[in-house]
Amino acid sequence: MSKRSAIALMLLLPAAALFAQSNVDQMMSTAKSAFGTLPRSMPSAANPITPEKAALGRILYFDPRISVDGTVSCSRCHLIGLYATDGLPKAIGNNGKLNPRNAPTVLNAADQIAAHWIGNRKNVEDQAAQALVGPPSFGMPSYDAAVKAIKAIPGYAPLFAAAFPQDADPITAANFGAAVGAFERTLVTPGPLDDFIGGDASALTARQQRGMTTFIGQGCGGCHSSTYLGGQLYTKFGLAAPYWQYTKSNPIDEGRFAVTGNPADKYVFKVPVLRNVAMTPPYFHDGSVPSLADAIRIMAKVQMGKDLTGAQVGDILAFFASLTGRIPPEVLQAPILPPTQTIDTGGPGD
Amino acid sequence: MSKRSAIALMLLLPAAALFAQSNVDQMMSTAKSAFGTLPRSMPSAANPITPEKAALGRILYFDPRISVDGTVSCSRCHLIGLYATDGLPKAIGNNGKLNPRNAPTVLNAADQIAAHWIGNRKNVEDQAAQALVGPPSFGMPSYDAAVKAIKAIPGYAPLFAAAFPQDADPITAANFGAAVGAFERTLVTPGPLDDFIGGDASALTARQQRGMTTFIGQGCGGCHSSTYLGGQLYTKFGLAAPYWQYTKSNPIDEGRFAVTGNPADKYVFKVPVLRNVAMTPPYFHDGSVPSLADAIRIMAKVQMGKDLTGAQVGDILAFFASLTGRIPPEVLQAPILPPTQTIDTGGPGD
Repeated sequence: MSKRSAIALMLLLPAAALFAQSNVDQMMSTAKSAFGTLPRSMPSAANPITPEKAALGRILYFDPRISVDGTVSCSRCHLIGLYATDGLPKAIGNNGKLNPRNAPTVLNAADQIAAHWIGNRKNVEDQAAQALVGPPSFGMPSYDAAVKAIKAIPGYAPLFAAAFPQDADPITAANFGAAVGAFERTLVTPGPLDDFIGGDASALTARQQRGMTTFIGQGCGGCHSSTYLGGQLYTKFGLAAPYWQYTKSNPIDEGRFAVTGNPADKYVFKVPVLRNVAMTPPYFHDGSVPSLADAIRIMAKVQMGKDLTGAQVGDILAFFASLTGRIPPEVLQAPILPPTQTIDTGGPGD
Repeated sequence: MSKRSAIALMLLLPAAALFAQSNVDQMMSTAKSAFGTLPRSMPSAANPITPEKAALGRILYFDPRISVDGTVSCSRCHLIGLYATDGLPKAIGNNGKLNPRNAPTVLNAADQIAAHWIGNRKNVEDQAAQALVGPPSFGMPSYDAAVKAIKAIPGYAPLFAAAFPQDADPITAANFGAAVGAFERTLVTPGPLDDFIGGDASALTARQQRGMTTFIGQGCGGCHSSTYLGGQLYTKFGLAAPYWQYTKSNPIDEGRFAVTGNPADKYVFKVPVLRNVAMTPPYFHDGSVPSLADAIRIMAKVQMGKDLTGAQVGDILAFFASLTGRIPPEVLQAPILPPTQTIDTGGPGD
């Protein structure tokens, strides 16, 4: 570079920096309008979060003793250390039983239109309560049996009483669901995207910002909407081409048709939340695709008939890494579970 | 009470307090000589604990992806929240497979003569490594397959390199065992008994002190020796009477005979560690007894031919509650597991 052009470049730098700055401001504004602000929790009028209820739910979440073979808790298929997934294509429950679909993360999951891939659970409370008797899940023969298993652990009585002070007999399957649901409603994980939206220009790399632009520009945000980037609507998986031609899914899952019986719901699934997507492989309702890059390519193809370039896929991948959030430390802290026996230790003058 | 006797009693109080004090000093001294001082970790010359190795072991401990069906980690049968047990009579591993014996706690477990009930694992390192290919445990078809599963998670490469800096190819089954072993060698849980030995007279109630005296006086400490109250020797389960007459065990386990083929080892088991015993039901090698009170009664009967009174059992129970220790907070803190894919997020100028 000649001395003159070096000087010319130096003179240009402040303007370039100014341009870059206004470009980042523009990006932040775009991000904020596209994704909004992640709340600190996901409250529900029907199931208010109280500290006692969430604390009980957190304990229940980890307790395998309330399952038919004593090995299944919420944590079995939603390991906090794997961003509340299990890393499996399809969840495996009691006695090695295969679940019909992939276990989605329960982080940032409580503000969706429904729970489960095909929306056959109303919300996180309903999901947790029904899991107790789900044959491939906890597998308890009845709600009564589940309640009996909880009551067999004396340490739970005071915890349920504190969490549900209005209830004469608080240990019920519905209250199990309400407690676990209250806990799950606190599982919000802000990450770099939120820092960026909050004003930290350095939170996203240039590549991540480009990926965000591509994600929005290609129309991905049409379905992956809201601050959760999903969970707000049902749509056909395979609007442009049958999904199984690209995912190699076997068997072919008819999706929400199984719930409604309406032919229009064939191959319709709830749009999954993309928060922490980089940490929650494998992908799709059947976990048939282990690589996120492949999943991005497939989505563009089968939903919009588009072939993304390698650069576009890489940029979107980089953007997706900005959705990897910070798990609250108190959530990573495993609770001590209540003991099955109480022991009279006496007193000093005993 | 008359005014005069009330005054007499008040005059006597200081002497009574002094007597009680010297009695407690005596108790502390007895406890210290019987149980010694719990160390802060359980080091091994063969496998020195380094921060990097223990940190890797802690991550591996929770990772189910290194098992044949993707559901088994150390934590599956040694849940920290259940004091590193699973609450089951016999552990259930991959594909719902039943293990031959009860999963003992891995807390305070690394200073024993061997691992497993029948001593068929040399130490915690050997136990962890062999678990990878144990058919009812992780169930990997070979050590190579286990190593391949670890290598398939790119985040492990730097962690193994940091933990085993001398090794050219550090991801091995032996190093899996060494890392998990190093982590387990840090799992020491001091509790009220240790506080009492350390000089806190209020750490044990009168009933707990009485229970300690009974435990020692009845001879339980002969086998349940050392600061761990066990793990230092093998002995026949049923010195005074066949154990299965009281435990209702079915099938009858011949114990260490399966390892040595020596008829003298029939019904011989390693004496289990009693640390945290109140929190780790059910009891015995086959988990056939859910109640600790029953387990105490049975032990006195089948080992020493003694019928303990209800008061003696209650006092020993109270003493056992003083063995419930404090789990280090960093152990309760679940680690984030390394992701299966790496994503290039680019740089600011990318």
